[in-house]
Amino acid sequence: MEHHFDTELDVLKQKLLTMASHTETAVHRALQALNQRDLDLALRVKDDDRYIDQFEMEIDELAIQLLTKAPLAGNLRLVTTAMKISQNLERVGDEASKIAKRARDLSQEPPVKITIDLPRMAGMALDMLKAALDAFVNQDPAAARALIPRDKEVDALNKQIHESLAQHMVANPDTIGRCLNWMVASKSLERIADHAKNVAEEVVF
Amino acid sequence: MEHHFDTELDVLKQKLLTMASHTETAVHRALQALNQRDLDLALRVKDDDRYIDQFEMEIDELAIQLLTKAPLAGNLRLVTTAMKISQNLERVGDEASKIAKRARDLSQEPPVKITIDLPRMAGMALDMLKAALDAFVNQDPAAARALIPRDKEVDALNKQIHESLAQHMVANPDTIGRCLNWMVASKSLERIADHAKNVAEEVVF
Repeated sequence: MEHHFDTELDVLKQKLLTMASHTETAVHRALQALNQRDLDLALRVKDDDRYIDQFEMEIDELAIQLLTKAPLAGNLRLVTTAMKISQNLERVGDEASKIAKRARDLSQEPPVKITIDLPRMAGMALDMLKAALDAFVNQDPAAARALIPRDKEVDALNKQIHESLAQHMVANPDTIGRCLNWMVASKSLERIADHAKNVAEEVVF
Repeated sequence: MEHHFDTELDVLKQKLLTMASHTETAVHRALQALNQRDLDLALRVKDDDRYIDQFEMEIDELAIQLLTKAPLAGNLRLVTTAMKISQNLERVGDEASKIAKRARDLSQEPPVKITIDLPRMAGMALDMLKAALDAFVNQDPAAARALIPRDKEVDALNKQIHESLAQHMVANPDTIGRCLNWMVASKSLERIADHAKNVAEEVVF
């Protein structure tokens, strides 16, 4: 029974990692659509979000099955943590869709002449998410705790981007609508880091 | 055993409702701080957020205890749904803090001469949240399903407010910073409705 439980727990963890990899792809594609003004790719990200939603439901099913068999409170917590992580990943997918929506709108307008470092911010947020998932899979609360402060770095970067865009808007009021779209995309990346922090906090507790 | 389980499940539900009432108060206070330019109240909302966070942890503890005793898969799902709802309420509390932060900044600057209907939006979002929690407590998936489309109404209202503010920014570039704060507050209310929708979706499935 215990052995069987461990095997099923591994299946659950594996599914969570696969879900994470899908959400990561969605974020990368959304950013690519944004940067390359690629309408088709933007629409695809929005459309593919249902697969990520589907993962959340499947993980819930698996988790409920496992809970009926979990012999120990420690294992119960592992399973409920997996469910919470999957809910966070689903939200990361939603943020990717939001970025894609902004990419769609921006692809129909002339580019804004301003350089903002969204790829760096995305890299930071996705690295955090990956590290948080690793900490869960390896049951490493110290690693999870260590990455929580990195959320502040992403917040700072978002604030900096927000200010650059606000200044650009003041100087070029004709770009306000487009700059707002960029701001929303940046905010979405900041939220992805929030979700990564939430995952890390789940692993710590 | 079954009877004991039901009593503890009632305690869990009660705690969730108390948590919901705290988050609702936080949102109301954050909006009041925003509308009345009340710095003290804004700081209080931010400070009180830790009580809401504490609720999430307590609900998790209770839920894990209950899961070790849950005799039926149906009950298991009830408990894991309660945990997910509590996570959503915790995020509603975070949004209240974000609104409070904007209220804090706006209280230090001259008011913007524009009328936007945030109270109505807040009312819609909080009504949704209340209805979703009622649907959970009464185990009423039909009621939960019925309120999911209301999220679109809140989205539409947010979009309308976003556009009014964007127009105001174009016409009055000196108000851009303040209008952005109002936009973020409006977006936070829209997210609260998202969380309410998530709670409703949890009850449906």
